[in-house]
Amino acid sequence: MREAEIRAAALEQFARRGYEATTMADIGAAVGMRGPSLYKHVSSKQDLLASVIEATMTTLLAEHDAAVSGVDELTERLRRAVDAHVRFHARHRREAFVGTRELRSLTEPRRSQILGLRAEYEQRFRTLVADGVEAGAFTVTDPQLASFALLDLGMGVAVWFREDSGPSENQVAWQQVEFALRLVGAIR
Amino acid sequence: MREAEIRAAALEQFARRGYEATTMADIGAAVGMRGPSLYKHVSSKQDLLASVIEATMTTLLAEHDAAVSGVDELTERLRRAVDAHVRFHARHRREAFVGTRELRSLTEPRRSQILGLRAEYEQRFRTLVADGVEAGAFTVTDPQLASFALLDLGMGVAVWFREDSGPSENQVAWQQVEFALRLVGAIR
Repeated sequence: MREAEIRAAALEQFARRGYEATTMADIGAAVGMRGPSLYKHVSSKQDLLASVIEATMTTLLAEHDAAVSGVDELTERLRRAVDAHVRFHARHRREAFVGTRELRSLTEPRRSQILGLRAEYEQRFRTLVADGVEAGAFTVTDPQLASFALLDLGMGVAVWFREDSGPSENQVAWQQVEFALRLVGAIR
Repeated sequence: MREAEIRAAALEQFARRGYEATTMADIGAAVGMRGPSLYKHVSSKQDLLASVIEATMTTLLAEHDAAVSGVDELTERLRRAVDAHVRFHARHRREAFVGTRELRSLTEPRRSQILGLRAEYEQRFRTLVADGVEAGAFTVTDPQLASFALLDLGMGVAVWFREDSGPSENQVAWQQVEFALRLVGAIR
């Protein structure tokens, strides 16, 4: 599909030189298309940015839901949610980078819409932590700060993880899960 | 001092529109200087970026050293190191943002030099964790992954902390210190 190819090129350009410094001509050149035919597929650079970040957020939400689906035990839910979060960030570093770095370049109404998706994702973790506290499985004073910390651990992975050196994805995921369980007081 | 003012303006512009999209004319306009007089003070945009990021790293290193200076007990050393790290990131969000986002825009030899400072800062935390493990104060399998996690917790604060809403700097710092101590197994 042509749109997917254009979106991939936009992601690459935004990650490399930043949204502001990227032109539609740069994106067109990367997929071998000039203005008129490019604009048959996408309406603006802003639309491309919004769709790139939105795709990241909807994928994260879907992977979270798949991870915890059918699992009732709260420590195991958290274990799987953190595992999915960390692995996504290890595998989609450019998406994570652009999602964080270029949020401020989004204009309304897409900006609010995407902030809504981010809030929804954070809320999933906050609820999980709060449920664990209520059930006596976790010891956390402030579920919001705990959910931020859990998310930050994964987002950090997107900054420093490398496939070709250092610890493997499995090592990182297992370790981060342990850190997460310790952080919420599930491991004493 | 004129240089400090120019550097502050550069930081502001880099944070707002990104390094690539900022011109020396933008920076000059922000301090009311045109090309020739601006270039009396700074030699290039690249130099400005390097000096902004370098200042961030040397400040972080100095604050870390001041925090742990004269403290032998390892849990207390970690407590203070995390406290300093978190508070710096709550107070210098733009510096943290530009430092992470624009690292890739740095050219050699400044890039390696600044990566060296970052490695030095990470090494301080890694050594602290390893010392704690050796002394039996902490339980950590991989001090490198633990130091990354500790640093990521603080850097996340730079993304979501707001002075005017949500938890206060103290609440955030105290909570992050507790998370850090849990993470290294200093609190069971």
